[in-house]
Amino acid sequence: MSEVYAARRARLRECCNAGGSATALVTRPANVRYLAGTAIQDAVLLLGAGEDLLLCRGTPGERSEDGRPDEALRVHSLPGSGGDPAVAAADLAAGRGAESLAVEEHHLTVTRHRALVSVAPLLRLTDLGGSVEQLRVVKDEEEISCLRIAAEITDQALAELLESILVGRTERHLALELERRLVDHGADSAAFATSVATGPHAGRRGHRPTDRRVEEGDFLSVCLGATYRGYRCEIGRTFVIGTSPADWQIELYDLVFAAQRAGRQALAPGVAYRDVDRAARHVLDSAGYAEGLAPRMGHGVGLENIEDPQLAPAAMGKLDACVPVTVEPGVHLPGRGGVRIDDTLVVRPEADGGPELLTITTKELLAL
Amino acid sequence: MSEVYAARRARLRECCNAGGSATALVTRPANVRYLAGTAIQDAVLLLGAGEDLLLCRGTPGERSEDGRPDEALRVHSLPGSGGDPAVAAADLAAGRGAESLAVEEHHLTVTRHRALVSVAPLLRLTDLGGSVEQLRVVKDEEEISCLRIAAEITDQALAELLESILVGRTERHLALELERRLVDHGADSAAFATSVATGPHAGRRGHRPTDRRVEEGDFLSVCLGATYRGYRCEIGRTFVIGTSPADWQIELYDLVFAAQRAGRQALAPGVAYRDVDRAARHVLDSAGYAEGLAPRMGHGVGLENIEDPQLAPAAMGKLDACVPVTVEPGVHLPGRGGVRIDDTLVVRPEADGGPELLTITTKELLAL
Repeated sequence: MSEVYAARRARLRECCNAGGSATALVTRPANVRYLAGTAIQDAVLLLGAGEDLLLCRGTPGERSEDGRPDEALRVHSLPGSGGDPAVAAADLAAGRGAESLAVEEHHLTVTRHRALVSVAPLLRLTDLGGSVEQLRVVKDEEEISCLRIAAEITDQALAELLESILVGRTERHLALELERRLVDHGADSAAFATSVATGPHAGRRGHRPTDRRVEEGDFLSVCLGATYRGYRCEIGRTFVIGTSPADWQIELYDLVFAAQRAGRQALAPGVAYRDVDRAARHVLDSAGYAEGLAPRMGHGVGLENIEDPQLAPAAMGKLDACVPVTVEPGVHLPGRGGVRIDDTLVVRPEADGGPELLTITTKELLAL
Repeated sequence: MSEVYAARRARLRECCNAGGSATALVTRPANVRYLAGTAIQDAVLLLGAGEDLLLCRGTPGERSEDGRPDEALRVHSLPGSGGDPAVAAADLAAGRGAESLAVEEHHLTVTRHRALVSVAPLLRLTDLGGSVEQLRVVKDEEEISCLRIAAEITDQALAELLESILVGRTERHLALELERRLVDHGADSAAFATSVATGPHAGRRGHRPTDRRVEEGDFLSVCLGATYRGYRCEIGRTFVIGTSPADWQIELYDLVFAAQRAGRQALAPGVAYRDVDRAARHVLDSAGYAEGLAPRMGHGVGLENIEDPQLAPAAMGKLDACVPVTVEPGVHLPGRGGVRIDDTLVVRPEADGGPELLTITTKELLAL
């Protein structure tokens, strides 16, 4: 694996050189993990000023970390509390004769940026921008295989929940139960706070579970995901509680299903992000649900729950092969509830069979 | 409660006026919650430019929020995705004729700060610094009562775990079980990722649970806490698995216990933060464990897991009454394990009975 990280760092150094700064400081945790192969709290990565260096606090025995740092990377531990590793990195870059340092202005706070200036006043700080985020958009097969495992774990956890008795249980308990099952099946952790929404809550984006209990006739919508080796997937499903769904429930479900299918079918290399959004959104718009729709119909996933690309009306750019994204339209009717359907898929060319569905739990309207 | 939030905002406006800026923009989530009474994702608070205003995205039905916003506060919803509420706030402040705006430079990123400058180029941006964090240090009785309930919940969850069979179970399962019990007993959620550490892991600060199983003769250390109405407490305990602890275990436990007691006993209004740290640290230092000790022996708790004050060697300042803090020394022996003992207490004057212990689970060395 070591070559993978070294190759990623080499690509970033190329970006930096092209941008006029030979030296870069990476501080955003997911970006550090992507380039160094480890998640150590507060660790930062200094590239291009002599050998690449991972700066962090404390010694390995004291630290809690996910994965071992790439062996080709020198790790520099600041003793004890040891101050801010980013400040230490700027100091070091200046000491090594760097003239400029590209930093992640979208991650560094104003106060921290000022501390860098103050420790290395002759170093010209430039903006690295979203260079690492851009590198992260297209995944390699190793990354996709982590996402595939994350999705399998998620599907298993959900399948087990569906076999259990749901009526009378609270949203909070169902959410905890799902999270326990994710870990049971080998997840590092839940990728994000599991959402379980019943009755009038169903279909709400990011609904935080409450003490409301599942009742006969409810819509029940769940959204969950596992993290596996740092990679996070996402699934959302909506069910009906009881034997026969009401007509309005069937109609609403069919509509959201059609929207989600349209979004999935739009996924192909070369398709504009906004066209995927439009494909799903148009179905809901045409049925009179334009208002209250989510600002985006999907987004990239990887080392973060939500990353580029954004599948949204104003998003610029086109899909590539090997980009994992969610497609997740939903409709919520205030006071009545609603439907959300959410999959994680990998964009693949038609010749390879089209989009690869990672979250394979059925999207039939199950009555539980 | 509405007067409480209005009074907090009035105090902050006084700070701002004293600092030369009549208008302030609060962006750090815990600070917004403290002043507005609600936690809405990405919400920001604009103070002093006309009436106080909470700016957020989306309408109430679409938002997930903890607690209702203070009714005396006008809520301004940006439609749909609606851009950055902080940028909208700067625009509004400029439109209302404000000349300067104090912002939280320790929270705003460089990129976001630049967006404020760009939307309101004539507005002079100054630094609000940690003004709100400073207001938050001393808690009112309402806040302390939330912390007291959080601690009760935490004690209950821990008590139940201790009654169950532990040998053979993994750290990860025990951690999940504790988190489930926290929610069972009424927590909003776990305050932070529950740490369960067995055998050679025991006593490590912030240890992330692994698949290691509890064995006879192990030290078992746990660290957990509940969030109740946004307030977060923390408890850490170490146990021995099996009937009779080894001599080295008893010695190490007694030492850490003595250090933790010394720290607790040092808590009083007027005592320097660093002297509390020193009281606990000195006991461990004298026994030859100076190296590898945590950079601080405790810290404030409240709407965040870790807030001011820091009980650390270089910390400046003195304790006040009604400041809740942790006291949490520990020793970890690489390869063997170790001991951590952690309580949440509220500083109270001697006349009121001295420090109030919120986390009342026994600190005897239990053999489980």
